[in-house]
Amino acid sequence: MQVNHKQYRAVWWDNGVIKYVDQRLIPYRFEVAEARTLSDVVDAIITMGVRGAPTIGVMAAYGLALATSNGGNPAAAYKTLAETRPTAVNLKVGLDRVMGGNAANILENARRFDDSEVAAAEAVGENGNQLISPNARILTHCNTGWLAAQDWGTAAAVIFKAHHAGKKPFVFVSETRPRLQGSRLPAWEMTNEGVDHVVIPDASSAFLMSRSEIDIVIAGADRIAANGDTANKIGTYSHALAAKAHGVPFYIAAPKSTIDLGTPTGADIEIEERDESEVLSVRGVDENGVLRTVRVASLTSGARNPAFDVTPADLIAGIITESGVVKPTVEAMHAHLM
Amino acid sequence: MQVNHKQYRAVWWDNGVIKYVDQRLIPYRFEVAEARTLSDVVDAIITMGVRGAPTIGVMAAYGLALATSNGGNPAAAYKTLAETRPTAVNLKVGLDRVMGGNAANILENARRFDDSEVAAAEAVGENGNQLISPNARILTHCNTGWLAAQDWGTAAAVIFKAHHAGKKPFVFVSETRPRLQGSRLPAWEMTNEGVDHVVIPDASSAFLMSRSEIDIVIAGADRIAANGDTANKIGTYSHALAAKAHGVPFYIAAPKSTIDLGTPTGADIEIEERDESEVLSVRGVDENGVLRTVRVASLTSGARNPAFDVTPADLIAGIITESGVVKPTVEAMHAHLM
Repeated sequence: MQVNHKQYRAVWWDNGVIKYVDQRLIPYRFEVAEARTLSDVVDAIITMGVRGAPTIGVMAAYGLALATSNGGNPAAAYKTLAETRPTAVNLKVGLDRVMGGNAANILENARRFDDSEVAAAEAVGENGNQLISPNARILTHCNTGWLAAQDWGTAAAVIFKAHHAGKKPFVFVSETRPRLQGSRLPAWEMTNEGVDHVVIPDASSAFLMSRSEIDIVIAGADRIAANGDTANKIGTYSHALAAKAHGVPFYIAAPKSTIDLGTPTGADIEIEERDESEVLSVRGVDENGVLRTVRVASLTSGARNPAFDVTPADLIAGIITESGVVKPTVEAMHAHLM
Repeated sequence: MQVNHKQYRAVWWDNGVIKYVDQRLIPYRFEVAEARTLSDVVDAIITMGVRGAPTIGVMAAYGLALATSNGGNPAAAYKTLAETRPTAVNLKVGLDRVMGGNAANILENARRFDDSEVAAAEAVGENGNQLISPNARILTHCNTGWLAAQDWGTAAAVIFKAHHAGKKPFVFVSETRPRLQGSRLPAWEMTNEGVDHVVIPDASSAFLMSRSEIDIVIAGADRIAANGDTANKIGTYSHALAAKAHGVPFYIAAPKSTIDLGTPTGADIEIEERDESEVLSVRGVDENGVLRTVRVASLTSGARNPAFDVTPADLIAGIITESGVVKPTVEAMHAHLM
C-alpha cells in the first residue's frame, strides 16, 4: 500500500537489515525502524512494533534469516522467536517455512514466504469482495489492514478491494481496547485509501446492530482451529455474539497459514495475557503533538488483560482465504487446505 | 460513603449553594465543587461533574430549588434542566417530585427526594445482596456506586452490602469506554471500601464468561421501560448477550424512580449521542500527576458515540429495586410499583 506516494510493505529485508514500519508510532508518525540483531526482532514483536499475525510471521521468518546470517544457531533462534507471542500461529508457520539449509537458503525462503503471504492477502481481499454489496456497512475489529498482513490485509483487504471496485463501503472501525489498534491503524489506513469510516467503542456494536446500522462483520484471525473455532483479538467474540443475535453475517478473513489443523478446537488455543498496564494507562499525543502515556484508571486498581478470545465456529458464516470462502467445519477446512 | 474518614453524598445543599463531588477529577483528585447558579448546575450535569442517573435526579431537584431561590421562574428552570440529558428518567422524576409551591417548598421537597433516593439505594443493595453467594465473581459496568446514586449506589450497592456481609465478592469492573467511568469511579470506590476487584476491557466479558470466570452480572439503569427493556450505559447490552450465551444470570439494580411506565418499550427510549471527541481522545494523568487529554485515534478519523444501549427484557433475570426483585414484565412491574 502507499504512504506519501511510496509503496510499502509492513516488513522488508534491506541489505542484511530488517526494516519495518514502526506500528507503535502510527497514526502519529510514520517512521521506518530497523532490526539488526535477533534481540531487535524479538523486541519489535513483543512491544508491538510489528503487529498482526501474518506480519509477525514474515518478521519471524526474516528474523531467522538475520540470526543465521549473523552466525547464530538456527534452532536456537527458532526457539527464541517461536516463544515471542503464543497465540498467533503464523509465527510458527513462517519459521517452519524458512528453516533448513544455510543462511542464504533461509533468506531466500523468507523472501518466498513474504511474497506468498502478500499474494495470499490480496487474494483474500478479492474473494471477500464477492460477499460485499454496494454501500455495505461493514464492522471490522483490530488491526486487519496492510500493516497487519505485510500488504492488503485480512479483513481490511476485503474492504480495500470493495472500495477499489467502486462499491463505496462504509466501515465501522471498532477501536479495540486496550491497545486501540482499531482507532490507530486501520482508521489511519482507511484515511490514506479514502475509505469512508468512523471509529466506535468496541461495546457499541450490539447497539448499532439493534438499530440495523451494520450489514456484515469481517474480522481477522490469529489462529483458526481445525474445527473452525477462531482466536482473534479480544472483543471479536462479543461482536460475533451481537451479530448472531441480530442476524448479521459474521466472517473471518485470513490467509490459509492461519488455519492450524494441529489445534483441534478453540479450547486448545493458548490465550496470551498481557500486562495490566495496557488497560490501566493509554498512550496518545497531547495538544503539542508529544506522545504521552496517561493513567486512566483508579491509581490503586489492577486489571486483567486477555489479549485474544475464541469465537466458536457456529457463530462464523464462513472463513475467507486466498482459495475462496470455506465453511468452518473439520471436513470443509481439510478439503480447503488440500 | 466515606472518603478520608468523612461521610459524603454525591451532591448536597449547603446554605443556598449546591456542593458536589467533582466526578471529572476522580480518581486522581477528590475535590468538592460548587454550583451557585442554574447555569452552573446545567454545566455540571452536561460535562459530567455529576453522573449516574439517580445522582443527576437529585442534582436537578436541588437545581430547581437553587434557581427559584435565586428568583428564577420554576417552569423555565424545569425545562432547562429537563433537557440536559435526554436518556436518564430520574432527572424528570426528580424535577416532578419537587415542582410546586414557593422556593422554600421546592427546597424542602428536594431534600425529601434526596433522602428517599439514599434510602432506596441502600435498600437496593440489601435486596440485591440476597442474590449473592459467598465468593461470588460479579461483573459490573459503568458508574454504579455511591457517586452515581447519592449514596450506596445501584449495582455497586449490592456489592458493598455483600462485602459488608462478609461474602468476599470479587468484582470485574468493566472499564466503560469511552469515558472510562468504570475504571475511574467504582474502581476507586471499591479500593476505598476494600472490595477485591480488577478492571477489564468492556469487550473481554464474553471471553471471561467462556472460561467460567464470572458468576453473575449486575448493571444499573438510566431508564427502564414499562415492559422491562432497560437503557443503560453503552456496553451493557453486550454484557447481557454474553451472559445469555453462557447461562450467567444478568440483573439490573435501580431505584423504582428509574422505571418509566410512560415509556412502553426500549424502542421508545431516546438514545443520546455524545461528542465524537470522547472516543477519539482520552483524559488521564501523566507521570507527574498532571491531568492531560491525549488524542488516541488516527488524526483524520471521526467517531460515533452513542452513550446508551437498550437491553431487551428477555435477557434480564430480574430488576432489583428498593422493594425487592421484580421480573421484567409489564404485569409484574405494574404490581411492583403499586
